[in-house]
Amino acid sequence: MSAKFIIGIDLGGTNLKIALLAKNLRIISKNVLNTRDFSGKKLVSVIVFAIEELIKSRGLKKEEILGVGIGVPGPTDHQKGIVHFLPNIPGWREVRLKNILEQRLKIKVQVDNDAKVMSLAEYNCGNARKYQNVLCVTLGTGVGGGIILGSRLYRGKDNAAGEIGHLPINDAGPRCNCGGVACLESYVGNRRIQERAIKSFKRNITLEELSLLASRGNRKALKIWQETASHLGVALSGMVTVLNLDAIVIGGGVAAAGDILFDKVKETIQKRAMSVQARRVKILKAKLGNNAGIVGAAILVKDEAGKN
Amino acid sequence: MSAKFIIGIDLGGTNLKIALLAKNLRIISKNVLNTRDFSGKKLVSVIVFAIEELIKSRGLKKEEILGVGIGVPGPTDHQKGIVHFLPNIPGWREVRLKNILEQRLKIKVQVDNDAKVMSLAEYNCGNARKYQNVLCVTLGTGVGGGIILGSRLYRGKDNAAGEIGHLPINDAGPRCNCGGVACLESYVGNRRIQERAIKSFKRNITLEELSLLASRGNRKALKIWQETASHLGVALSGMVTVLNLDAIVIGGGVAAAGDILFDKVKETIQKRAMSVQARRVKILKAKLGNNAGIVGAAILVKDEAGKN
Repeated sequence: MSAKFIIGIDLGGTNLKIALLAKNLRIISKNVLNTRDFSGKKLVSVIVFAIEELIKSRGLKKEEILGVGIGVPGPTDHQKGIVHFLPNIPGWREVRLKNILEQRLKIKVQVDNDAKVMSLAEYNCGNARKYQNVLCVTLGTGVGGGIILGSRLYRGKDNAAGEIGHLPINDAGPRCNCGGVACLESYVGNRRIQERAIKSFKRNITLEELSLLASRGNRKALKIWQETASHLGVALSGMVTVLNLDAIVIGGGVAAAGDILFDKVKETIQKRAMSVQARRVKILKAKLGNNAGIVGAAILVKDEAGKN
Repeated sequence: MSAKFIIGIDLGGTNLKIALLAKNLRIISKNVLNTRDFSGKKLVSVIVFAIEELIKSRGLKKEEILGVGIGVPGPTDHQKGIVHFLPNIPGWREVRLKNILEQRLKIKVQVDNDAKVMSLAEYNCGNARKYQNVLCVTLGTGVGGGIILGSRLYRGKDNAAGEIGHLPINDAGPRCNCGGVACLESYVGNRRIQERAIKSFKRNITLEELSLLASRGNRKALKIWQETASHLGVALSGMVTVLNLDAIVIGGGVAAAGDILFDKVKETIQKRAMSVQARRVKILKAKLGNNAGIVGAAILVKDEAGKN
């Protein structure tokens, strides 16, 4: 019996998304669990349980499943399937996730960092599809990234490449969670944007409301988005200049601010990047949104199977 | 008769270096001409004449020459052999250097940007040899770079990748020759260092003297080198974080400032880059110095011949 299905999992700080996909990456079913209630070993058991349940509820045989792919929000040894740590999920340190899951499930498992997984999804099925050299950026509490170079995911020596959120954009500036100073994330991470918004409006305000206000022309809200986009644009200008990229794909919650954000990012790149590179690069919105993680996780499985 | 020799040429704003190399990249002879006296078409004729003279003086036949490689100080279309322009040599705009030279010489010619050529040399024969993912930086009037990723020169979509000199290192800052703002080069290019030195010492002072003074512990001189290294370190921290590099190789005139510069660059990277990436990267001095350009140009020829 040849394998027809792939299980794609997107582990986040808030949700665990688990999906059954066809080999052509079509999503057959998707389930979302809250991860806030579980930490460390408990969460691994929840993942195993969720996979077993999915297989049972669909009446599948394990031989029908090509593999399980899983994207996790932290640094990962992709080859060995070890999760080094997860900044937003307590109790994960050097977890041999691939080994643990393979032993308990008897199915092949692939593990990788979530930003890389999302980049694979945008490159294979999303808006980065036509391009060879692409930076995919995800904006959220953290700012992550994945780089496709010469039509392949570029991992770097320790699978740690792509960390655009921790590119310094100033000589001096705010201290970042990573230990660095003036990292992009410490200017455009959700919390920083919200801090600036609260300071400006002198009341609690969500990013959704901030986007809505900006779209209606509210000056204070527009100013905050433009400052955010300008910081992001400076960081991306550097990447455009040094990597001579074909495209940058931007996704994640903050990207929902839409044209206000994108127009200013584009303007900044035209001003700050070298002219040949600035003329070349396309700045695009991510296409896959919420499903990028599960689709990318399934691609990990397909790519690995393709090697054999 | 099989080709035994390669001609390697390094065209600079001041000098034209022309060398005869064996196929194993050993330099057999080297000649240096002043380029200041020639511009535009005249310089192309000088190059042709110099090559013809070299062949004649050595009693060689054209069939004995595998090809001519030439590195030029500006943006280049490597595949078509077109030099887009040379910021420091007047009269070069969209020069079809490969075609012109091949027609006049009847020898195969390869043309590329000088920073890329030097990176090839350091990667093949210099201090970058053991590493797979390397950024090579050349410090001078301009600040150039070449990137080796996965053991191959990474060119980007328009052969414009590697322009580390034009990475913005601040939101705002000095205007750069490239049209950008706060580019690395506008902090650490030779002219900027000298400007700071003249201001500090209130007299004319060369970079050689500045290095000498620093090595003897002169505080003003030390401060200037440390500021320079700190700016360079911030830019390189970004590259280390995003590209998860194995090594950075630094060459060019300013690198002669030695440990004062290198120590501060290393310290800055440890402070500013993400920890996994910072622990991985080695910061090395370029090995090939003045000969990097001619050796790298010869490698262009060898690599091209290897493809066929």
